[in-house]
Amino acid sequence: MQPINVNMGKGRIEAFSDGVIAIIITIMVLEMKVPGHGHFQLVDLKDMWPVFISYVMSFVYVGIYWNNHHHMFHAVKSINGTVLWANLYLLFWLSVVPFVSAWMGENSFAAVWPVVMYGFVLLMNSIAYFILVKVLIKHEGKKSPLATAVGNDKKGKISTLLYVVGIACAWISTYLSFAFYVLVALMWLIPDRRIEKKLATDQSVN
Amino acid sequence: MQPINVNMGKGRIEAFSDGVIAIIITIMVLEMKVPGHGHFQLVDLKDMWPVFISYVMSFVYVGIYWNNHHHMFHAVKSINGTVLWANLYLLFWLSVVPFVSAWMGENSFAAVWPVVMYGFVLLMNSIAYFILVKVLIKHEGKKSPLATAVGNDKKGKISTLLYVVGIACAWISTYLSFAFYVLVALMWLIPDRRIEKKLATDQSVN
Amino acid sequence: MQPINVNMGKGRIEAFSDGVIAIIITIMVLEMKVPGHGHFQLVDLKDMWPVFISYVMSFVYVGIYWNNHHHMFHAVKSINGTVLWANLYLLFWLSVVPFVSAWMGENSFAAVWPVVMYGFVLLMNSIAYFILVKVLIKHEGKKSPLATAVGNDKKGKISTLLYVVGIACAWISTYLSFAFYVLVALMWLIPDRRIEKKLATDQSVN
Amino acid sequence: MQPINVNMGKGRIEAFSDGVIAIIITIMVLEMKVPGHGHFQLVDLKDMWPVFISYVMSFVYVGIYWNNHHHMFHAVKSINGTVLWANLYLLFWLSVVPFVSAWMGENSFAAVWPVVMYGFVLLMNSIAYFILVKVLIKHEGKKSPLATAVGNDKKGKISTLLYVVGIACAWISTYLSFAFYVLVALMWLIPDRRIEKKLATDQSVN
Repeated sequence: MQPINVNMGKGRIEAFSDGVIAIIITIMVLEMKVPGHGHFQLVDLKDMWPVFISYVMSFVYVGIYWNNHHHMFHAVKSINGTVLWANLYLLFWLSVVPFVSAWMGENSFAAVWPVVMYGFVLLMNSIAYFILVKVLIKHEGKKSPLATAVGNDKKGKISTLLYVVGIACAWISTYLSFAFYVLVALMWLIPDRRIEKKLATDQSVN
Repeated sequence: MQPINVNMGKGRIEAFSDGVIAIIITIMVLEMKVPGHGHFQLVDLKDMWPVFISYVMSFVYVGIYWNNHHHMFHAVKSINGTVLWANLYLLFWLSVVPFVSAWMGENSFAAVWPVVMYGFVLLMNSIAYFILVKVLIKHEGKKSPLATAVGNDKKGKISTLLYVVGIACAWISTYLSFAFYVLVALMWLIPDRRIEKKLATDQSVN
Repeated sequence: MQPINVNMGKGRIEAFSDGVIAIIITIMVLEMKVPGHGHFQLVDLKDMWPVFISYVMSFVYVGIYWNNHHHMFHAVKSINGTVLWANLYLLFWLSVVPFVSAWMGENSFAAVWPVVMYGFVLLMNSIAYFILVKVLIKHEGKKSPLATAVGNDKKGKISTLLYVVGIACAWISTYLSFAFYVLVALMWLIPDRRIEKKLATDQSVN
Repeated sequence: MQPINVNMGKGRIEAFSDGVIAIIITIMVLEMKVPGHGHFQLVDLKDMWPVFISYVMSFVYVGIYWNNHHHMFHAVKSINGTVLWANLYLLFWLSVVPFVSAWMGENSFAAVWPVVMYGFVLLMNSIAYFILVKVLIKHEGKKSPLATAVGNDKKGKISTLLYVVGIACAWISTYLSFAFYVLVALMWLIPDRRIEKKLATDQSVN
């Protein structure tokens, strides 16, 4: 398949991505089932603790992807058909997060497979994001602000590695896996400085 | 009913369509019910396999419609009241996809009627899209970039035919039907080249 | 409470309304519960017929409101704080449509109270829309394009009357009530000509 | 963590917030479960009364946050990475409102803990909003229209105090707590005059 090089505005792909990510981040709260009628004690919320932690974690992860998506597209000038599909591929893996998040929470982070699958979906997301970056750079050109800002993408490569290590750890301790996932999240909580710095430099130069 | 020819900007119809399609593509994941508490083995996901395949398929189909919708409206200059309704008619049939998708997945693609109904809804979507194209061309004019780009719409006509054949096959083998649906999806995975090419030509001329 | 007369752009109120209406129109499909595993015959869909009809009806109604909202705001130049709340009041009553729609469908249009409540919510929506129009005209001025286009709002007044008659009919025959609701929908399916015509005249004059 | 001072347009953060808030405000209606088949009397809705009241209350609260968010960002010129996260933090606490709202409604406002948790989530929202305001003012500058408009934020401080008092009252009477929550809502129903007035003054000066 040849990449199509017609330039299209980025407005609508941003709007659609915003919509999908907004829904993903919000429907996860539906997994927190309200304790039934007559269960109105604080202790009735106790069992929900892991589900809540899982929700917070996934909220932060989806939030990170939205923030980075925002920063990346801020540096993008136009898109093409291939970008549309690479973006949809990322949205697909993001849409699976609520499912694995609920499975992991429901089993209180103690069961191996839910924790493994959660890590697997995070891994697929990081790969999908990597593909999107590559497709965008191919479209924008190797000397575009985006390309120079991304550079060798060390942070992305470390994340992918940490996910793999985290998944492998699940057979030793699921809590150790979880610690790795938290570590990657913390690493990304800071918005992508590479792009910001590059843009800041451009602004101060001009 | 006379078509109303007041020109309106296309911004809000795009935004509303983005919203509806974003929700449709995302709520389908809610059909993937998390295995209950205490079901934390990989084998517990095995029964979900058909539901997941069905989800992937429908995600791709709704994604195709969004991409083509995006491409088509990219070539559109303005809209009118009739376009609003033709667009809502398409959104209606897209909104039924999650329902038939879940029904088909829940019966593991083995039962005739769910597979037939899935094909029927795809067929109705292709007809609704066809109507939307016609209404847009009527509004934009037969010499508009959109009209020349769409041309005789061979791909659309082949799709409609393949859906009908696929539906009929369900009484022989539901997996054969499914193969036809996959075939049409593959055919459309490539964004609408007709419109892209036409626009590309226009851009290089100007 | 004094109306606040600071002018704000209409972009974000349109976007938020689009979002809410897109969600309302789409989550209604979730009321169509997939027949359980092992129910894969066409006959298994038979019981869903009233739910489907109810869905179509409500989809059309919410679609009408979106279309009219679109047309009306197309003629609006700016908004203020009072408009924000009048708009939220309309969105509130629209958000109740999925609930009464499901209740009516589940009881196959045969029970009095679900049909009455459905009509009541339609009535409240028409009143909320009426209030929004008044608030917008107060903000835009009595000689604004919007005001002259709306005129004496005969269609709106007839609708309100027909809802009341339709509700009252439920104690005679719920199907008669339903016929009235369909009648109003048909009346509105044609986008608001008053505003379109006025704008068309303005465009041809300029 | 150093705040990043690259200026980005506010369009996409507004669009994403609109999307999330639109979903939150709309999915709450899903908590109003339709009475089962064969329950079609008006009396069948009676038990839903507290759930409905809780829905109205939460709809108004989320509506207030959207309105104030709208007003505040109207006065904002650009954003940075820190603002993105402060905004996501607010959206997180807003996303928990449907959960506590359903819990409170299901127990008819009579149980202590659901009413306390509802107040707690409102309190966390008011704190998150306070943080967002601070972060925005730090970015925009102390002499920006936003900063002078917000002033000493008396209304925000009173709200926070009233939430705390309301929560404490739950051990005396949950209805008294509820009265406090209603009071704060009424206080905010009027859009943020400080910002509006400031902008109005600016407009009349220019």
